[in-house]
Amino acid sequence: MTLTPVKRPEPKQLRAHVIQETVDTVVSAEAARLAEGPEWLTQSQENHGLPLSVERSFASFPVWELTHYLFGGRERAEHRERLMSDIERDPSFMMLDLKHDLPMGSVREATLRRARNFTETILEEHESVTRMRFDVLAMVDPSFMTRVGVHYALFWGTIRGQGTTEQIVDLASQGMLLLKDFFGCFAMTELGHGSNVAGLQTTATFMPESDEFELHTPSLLATKWWIGGAAESATHAVVFARLLSNGTDYGVRPFVVQLRHPQDFALCFGVTIGDCGAKMGRHGIDNGWIQFNRVRIPRRAMLARHVSINRAGVVRERARGSRQLAYGALITARVQIAVDASNACKRAITIAVRYAAVRRQFSPHPEAPETRLLDYPSHQARLMPLLADAFAIHFAAERTQLQQQACSELLEAVPESPLAVRALADLKALHGTASGLKAHSTWLAQRVIEECRQSLGGHGYSSYAGLASLQADFVVQCTWDGDNTVMALQCGRYLVACWRDRTGRAGLSSNLAYLATLEQALAYRSPARRAADFQRLDLLVQLYSSVCAHLVDTAGVKIEQYLSPAGGNMSPDEAYREAAPELLRAARAHCLGYMLRQFAEAVTAAPASLRPPLEKLCALFGLHHLIESAGALCAIALEKSFLSPEQLRDARDCYRALMPEIRADAVPLVDSFALPDFILASPFGRYDGDVYRAYFDRVKFGSTLSNEAARAAGGSGDRRATSGPVRLTGQEHPYFESQLKPLFRRTLPE
Amino acid sequence: MTLTPVKRPEPKQLRAHVIQETVDTVVSAEAARLAEGPEWLTQSQENHGLPLSVERSFASFPVWELTHYLFGGRERAEHRERLMSDIERDPSFMMLDLKHDLPMGSVREATLRRARNFTETILEEHESVTRMRFDVLAMVDPSFMTRVGVHYALFWGTIRGQGTTEQIVDLASQGMLLLKDFFGCFAMTELGHGSNVAGLQTTATFMPESDEFELHTPSLLATKWWIGGAAESATHAVVFARLLSNGTDYGVRPFVVQLRHPQDFALCFGVTIGDCGAKMGRHGIDNGWIQFNRVRIPRRAMLARHVSINRAGVVRERARGSRQLAYGALITARVQIAVDASNACKRAITIAVRYAAVRRQFSPHPEAPETRLLDYPSHQARLMPLLADAFAIHFAAERTQLQQQACSELLEAVPESPLAVRALADLKALHGTASGLKAHSTWLAQRVIEECRQSLGGHGYSSYAGLASLQADFVVQCTWDGDNTVMALQCGRYLVACWRDRTGRAGLSSNLAYLATLEQALAYRSPARRAADFQRLDLLVQLYSSVCAHLVDTAGVKIEQYLSPAGGNMSPDEAYREAAPELLRAARAHCLGYMLRQFAEAVTAAPASLRPPLEKLCALFGLHHLIESAGALCAIALEKSFLSPEQLRDARDCYRALMPEIRADAVPLVDSFALPDFILASPFGRYDGDVYRAYFDRVKFGSTLSNEAARAAGGSGDRRATSGPVRLTGQEHPYFESQLKPLFRRTLPE
Ligand SMILES: Cc1cc2nc3c(=O)[nH]c(=O)nc-3n(C[C@H](O)[C@H](O)[C@H](O)COP(=O)(O)OP(=O)(O)OC[C@H]3O[C@@H](n4cnc5c(N)ncnc54)[C@H](O)[C@@H]3O)c2cc1C
Ligand SMILES: Cc1cc2nc3c(=O)[nH]c(=O)nc-3n(C[C@H](O)[C@H](O)[C@H](O)COP(=O)(O)OP(=O)(O)OC[C@H]3O[C@@H](n4cnc5c(N)ncnc54)[C@H](O)[C@@H]3O)c2cc1C
Repeated sequence: MTLTPVKRPEPKQLRAHVIQETVDTVVSAEAARLAEGPEWLTQSQENHGLPLSVERSFASFPVWELTHYLFGGRERAEHRERLMSDIERDPSFMMLDLKHDLPMGSVREATLRRARNFTETILEEHESVTRMRFDVLAMVDPSFMTRVGVHYALFWGTIRGQGTTEQIVDLASQGMLLLKDFFGCFAMTELGHGSNVAGLQTTATFMPESDEFELHTPSLLATKWWIGGAAESATHAVVFARLLSNGTDYGVRPFVVQLRHPQDFALCFGVTIGDCGAKMGRHGIDNGWIQFNRVRIPRRAMLARHVSINRAGVVRERARGSRQLAYGALITARVQIAVDASNACKRAITIAVRYAAVRRQFSPHPEAPETRLLDYPSHQARLMPLLADAFAIHFAAERTQLQQQACSELLEAVPESPLAVRALADLKALHGTASGLKAHSTWLAQRVIEECRQSLGGHGYSSYAGLASLQADFVVQCTWDGDNTVMALQCGRYLVACWRDRTGRAGLSSNLAYLATLEQALAYRSPARRAADFQRLDLLVQLYSSVCAHLVDTAGVKIEQYLSPAGGNMSPDEAYREAAPELLRAARAHCLGYMLRQFAEAVTAAPASLRPPLEKLCALFGLHHLIESAGALCAIALEKSFLSPEQLRDARDCYRALMPEIRADAVPLVDSFALPDFILASPFGRYDGDVYRAYFDRVKFGSTLSNEAARAAGGSGDRRATSGPVRLTGQEHPYFESQLKPLFRRTLPE
Repeated sequence: MTLTPVKRPEPKQLRAHVIQETVDTVVSAEAARLAEGPEWLTQSQENHGLPLSVERSFASFPVWELTHYLFGGRERAEHRERLMSDIERDPSFMMLDLKHDLPMGSVREATLRRARNFTETILEEHESVTRMRFDVLAMVDPSFMTRVGVHYALFWGTIRGQGTTEQIVDLASQGMLLLKDFFGCFAMTELGHGSNVAGLQTTATFMPESDEFELHTPSLLATKWWIGGAAESATHAVVFARLLSNGTDYGVRPFVVQLRHPQDFALCFGVTIGDCGAKMGRHGIDNGWIQFNRVRIPRRAMLARHVSINRAGVVRERARGSRQLAYGALITARVQIAVDASNACKRAITIAVRYAAVRRQFSPHPEAPETRLLDYPSHQARLMPLLADAFAIHFAAERTQLQQQACSELLEAVPESPLAVRALADLKALHGTASGLKAHSTWLAQRVIEECRQSLGGHGYSSYAGLASLQADFVVQCTWDGDNTVMALQCGRYLVACWRDRTGRAGLSSNLAYLATLEQALAYRSPARRAADFQRLDLLVQLYSSVCAHLVDTAGVKIEQYLSPAGGNMSPDEAYREAAPELLRAARAHCLGYMLRQFAEAVTAAPASLRPPLEKLCALFGLHHLIESAGALCAIALEKSFLSPEQLRDARDCYRALMPEIRADAVPLVDSFALPDFILASPFGRYDGDVYRAYFDRVKFGSTLSNEAARAAGGSGDRRATSGPVRLTGQEHPYFESQLKPLFRRTLPE
């Protein structure tokens, strides 16, 4: 149903109010019409999608153009859409949200079912398409994506990065890439060591007499832990172990090790594997633990591109891998997580905004229709900043990826030129920033998801709303692939390193330009003269730069102090350790400032038609994290006189005034993320707004399903939802006979 | 094993460093001793609890005295301990954390099993003991507590509060209190209405011809939703429905309705019930939905203490319940949630601190032992403020309860005296504050739990760590019993009401004293002269009062503006709605300030031996939320010149300096919460520190259990963990034949 809006809003008038009135008018008219019909009609039409249609009809910008801009142009955006519908139609991906009602075993089995068609597909397509496919799949089924990612990115990625050409060719020829008698896992972490990889304790001792290694788990803490795919599906692993030869410890190296026989899946001799058991989310991936009891593996099992060992057990370090390649790979992995964080935010906020446009609660006076949540200023203040976060993380991740690619290409094209020197500096800076971005985008996303979940009220607690599992699946991103605190510290250390080095440098990367002009940044006085000036992105970016400059400077000064005789003559390691809280504060501001700058640049580069809404969102992002979020950046701005108290008040007014403006486009803005219902997998996020009917149907279906499963399991399976909408008698009730009857019939004490 | 510390720290020296060194010395000596023995010995002793013993030996205060102080004196503390061991020994409560590995159906059945012994126990004990029992049970099994709470507090509580004496006696005599043929639920919320209770749509139409009501669900959105106990275990409900008589709508009233026949549990005619299905947590409680299709119930089913209806259908409002009773009940319910929030924080931080005292990661140089997490300044900066939060919420909840009781007793004892006037004012203020406290204590706890979870690294993602389910079970407290945003708004509205009324008042409650002396509060200049002054609790309390005064004032001025002709002549409702973001900000600061003040008063009242550690924790709480947490309170302090920039820097230094001091007592401080391992239900929180062995055993046990369950279910049950530490061959593998074999054996495309 298309609608011509009743009344076009004047520019600058409060469009939000006009939209609110229009929706109320249209909806009441429809309700009156329906009230004349039979009761069943009223019931079934109760919450049709009218509000969303009206909201859409008021969009102030071309929605699909924004979609194209977000996803790299019309062609790529359409390609992405095709990929999504491809996956939607793949039978193995049907009814994804069944996972809420199926036993864990079936969920894991589904992961494998999905892997079957997959390999052929990706081997035939271009890498850029595969990357897009991975982004989408990570939303569709995070567990599946993890299982496949473990094999391709971690297992095979390590072989490709650390194996000699012969080793790579040899292993590929055996079918490793095709999942033919091979399914890999990545066994680095141990019970006792995760972040500190150099401290791993599994040993691989070279036995010259038989030209083999003896792989051994010397202690409980050396047990390989959390290994994705190990529990039930892997045949092989890349195992990280200490290379010992002739009594010398050569540090941790990767070894390709067979765990199970692909014919019958029996464990290889000396290998013990168990399941890590129940966990918070990602139930479809089988994490396991592995112990080796003096397992013999051939010498060629060690991946030997960088370090090799000969027949006599002599260990030789070969040319170390190119720095730039290593940076490139690390940046890619971390930015990939930021992409995932932005996607998680997009899903959560799409669900929250659409529901808020439909849900009504409380009316201002008895005759008025109830107010929609989206029309509450407090609800706007909750959701609009999260919408801005989703965009900010999106652009920051996207653009970091592009910069990394550009630098790497430049380095390859003109390796010795001055341009290349600059590119390498940029790459290093990107690496420093990417660690922080990984941490801060995932922390941000965690909060976005939880706030969206709570914004649904009680329904956010239902699994079918999709937000609880989004959260549970997502949060491990704060921990793996570099624990967030460790990553943020890495970013902070990099910032201080640049700070210490700032004068000696030819030129700092643009991301760190504020360190090159430190004095200037610290002497900054905002020229903003009224509230509206705080929508100026250039001013916001400068303000952040000054705040960052101050925080990096503070951390740097503290560290110099610790290093000095007066401050205790600490070693650099100790100094950085002691100053960790300051480093974390600096890294946090830097990452927010980085996201802001990337976002602002994306606004500048956007087609004119898209600039107004994006500009507002970008300003909201900057203002929100300045004024409201943890860390009190605005206090630093006041303290250092970057802002005067009056200016801070103006900034708050601007922040406040942006809410209803962005709210007026909130539905079109989440539409621009172009997430199909299939991926949202939440009745509350439905494009058509028919949330209640869909929710009720899903709940009824869940009961029926559990009923069936329980019946199939002979009554001893998962009987959670056995009552269903059926009229239960004692016989069918899961525990009436065992619990309720004895309770009701007991004789009471005197 | 008891240890004499190697070296007693000088006062004011960095005790944290001394402790660190002592632990390292003792642990290395022990390790050297073990290294001489056989390998299995080294393995099994790998992470004995030595570090915790050493930490404890350095306690700067008498730990059990603090326990007694926390829990209302030695006698009560010991009683609480006895209760806990009682529950621990009750066979139906054994092996609580089995829930991670059992199918949902068994978890729900366990809830009922636990209910069996329960009723007799509580009917025989004093109410204050029962309250203590409830606090403990809410930690032990939140689902069980919910089921029992629904029956006693909500179902029976409504009958007691809204029924006539006859109705109460009549229902009690039928066995309602004894769970004899009665198990109640509380059916208020509908699919379409939660916060707005006045908008509920279920109808109860009086039928004078048969002296009955016709209870009806007129639309999908009127379906009763989320009703705890409805899906599988309730026989009766208190149903909230609109009372219609002679064509007039008398608003929402409570009705006692039978849902099922206790003999065979068949549903009553016209009642349809379904399961709400999968949800985020509290899996042991059976939430259901209910629809009524013109169900007839007798006239006496309406609880008629406040509103009655006669044979002719004439509705009469009786004397309204006493205000003070209503306040009392609301305060009790909300404070109860704050108590639960503090308990959740205590559990989470106990686990996080003990693990951090054992876990090592990274060494400063190759020969040194790795650093324990607790010795990282960044880890201290993460955990110590959370420890302070746990104490702050504890004291605030505890003391609010006591104040409420004191006021109520005073009101009863000398109803007409000037004392009573003051007591009533205090009770109203407490009610305003309690709404905000409910919201902010649960929001705080949600973040505390998540941060603790992440602080464990990867192991925090394991269900067996206990933090994921603590979180999932807990967060619904942000939504039910008054959605947090709605509660915080209520608090904000109350604050502004007091602000508007501040001159007309005889005297404001002490919690709002800062409004009575508004000008003074706004003109405040901190007298702090050096960093150490920011440990002075009186100064911190004053600072908070001024910040609160400013924020309430800002919100109030804004509302006056909206109400004025210049500001749009809004209705009060509209004005409060528009100013909601300002109200929320004021409420937030007020609640933090309230917690701080309660905490500070508890410090003053504490025995001298406990004051030093509590003082530091209290200061940390105040400083943390001033400087670091969301909302940037310190920016307001700067802006209004309550603090100068130099003073803010001093405050930061003080904040920073408190970390290692509190860290030195961190283990004894969490010990003082006196949570037994049984309640912590996390290997990482074990009192003896033997975390890894316990974790590994639990994981192995989980697999075995799932194996057995799967076998019992004939292979089609929950097969999540079927691999276990067993050597799997294809035959036993849950999906080798169906998925892996076809994958490995397929013919590849050319
Ligand atoms: C679901 C899941 C799947 C996984 N899959 C795999 C897999 O397939 N293969 C694999 O090899 N691993 C896997 N992992 C392991 C993961 O990589 C590790 O959990 C991660 O690297 C963190 O290590 P850790 O758990 O040992 O935490 P730790 O390193 O012990 O960290 C614990 C805490 O200490 C803090 N900390 C650590 N060092 C410092 C420091 N220097 N300064 C300040 N604070 C510090 C951290 O911030 C953290 O809070 C998986 C983990 C999970 C949860
Ligand atoms: C596990 C569980 C068990 C439950 N058990 C029971 C039970 O046994 N019996 C029972 O009757 N109920 C029960 N409930 C329901 C619970 O009481 C409601 O979910 C709660 O009252 C919130 O109502 P709602 O879900 O309709 O949210 P809504 O009221 O629709 O709120 C949705 C969102 O809108 C916001 N909002 C609402 N009004 C305003 C406003 N005026 N201004 C600004 N923002 C606003 C809220 O903050 C929230 O974010 C249960 C819920 C859950 C999740």
